[in-house]
Amino acid sequence: MGHRYRGPIESSPPPSPSPSPSPDADEESVRVIVERFYAAFEGRDLDLMSDVWVHDDTVVCTHPGWASLHGWAAVSASWFAIFEQSAPMQVFVTDERVRVEGDLAWVSLDENLLGAGGDEAGTTVSALKVLQRTGDGWRLVAHHGSVVVGRPE
Amino acid sequence: MGHRYRGPIESSPPPSPSPSPSPDADEESVRVIVERFYAAFEGRDLDLMSDVWVHDDTVVCTHPGWASLHGWAAVSASWFAIFEQSAPMQVFVTDERVRVEGDLAWVSLDENLLGAGGDEAGTTVSALKVLQRTGDGWRLVAHHGSVVVGRPE
Repeated sequence: MGHRYRGPIESSPPPSPSPSPSPDADEESVRVIVERFYAAFEGRDLDLMSDVWVHDDTVVCTHPGWASLHGWAAVSASWFAIFEQSAPMQVFVTDERVRVEGDLAWVSLDENLLGAGGDEAGTTVSALKVLQRTGDGWRLVAHHGSVVVGRPE
Repeated sequence: MGHRYRGPIESSPPPSPSPSPSPDADEESVRVIVERFYAAFEGRDLDLMSDVWVHDDTVVCTHPGWASLHGWAAVSASWFAIFEQSAPMQVFVTDERVRVEGDLAWVSLDENLLGAGGDEAGTTVSALKVLQRTGDGWRLVAHHGSVVVGRPE
């Protein structure tokens, strides 16, 4: 929006690389946040989990089989409880698909859970996430996971 | 960004209504699409369901307990099968929360299902949806529903 020189020199040098993020860079940044989410989950690291979420009253998180939790206070309390009470699990993420449009992104993926115990070990959880671009980078505003139920033979 | 008259007259007449959608108008438009989604579901109306979705390979739909379906071909086939095979159900939507940011919106709500039969009648399904502003208005690009499991007493 600032002053632009419109003379013939403008077309002469190649445009310098833009410092603003490209769609590919945005997609990569979103993938990094998703990786951190699962690192936090595997490591039962509340600080790291806290870092990847927007902290306001509008965030929503639906754990498999749970009612939806609204607001960061409820969401963070749920992660605290899950990290306290659940056995450690490894998560192998497959079929991750990222879409970015403007300042929002949505991600679909499968969480393949491996672990010593718990209701969810050995299961696949399908998840949908919404992330928003903030002053601190991309952050989660919504996460919804649900167990994929095996179909009867 | 255009010319603005800064004199005293500016404050005199009330501003004329803007033809561009306001955040409230966007939110209302998103709610209308969500209503149509459930009207299509209750009426088992594939045409109406088709009208509320973006038709491309990137849409994603996760029915309760199902693996995620990607692309409009798979998503529309799933609605066709559900409408053919399921008993009619009424859906009472509660706790609907809509957020709009630019050309995307996300919606969290509970579907309270009432009906004659089927695995899901009498249950509550928590859902997260993502909608995108298109040339034809707001359309669904993602829907994820999962049954809220009653907690043991």
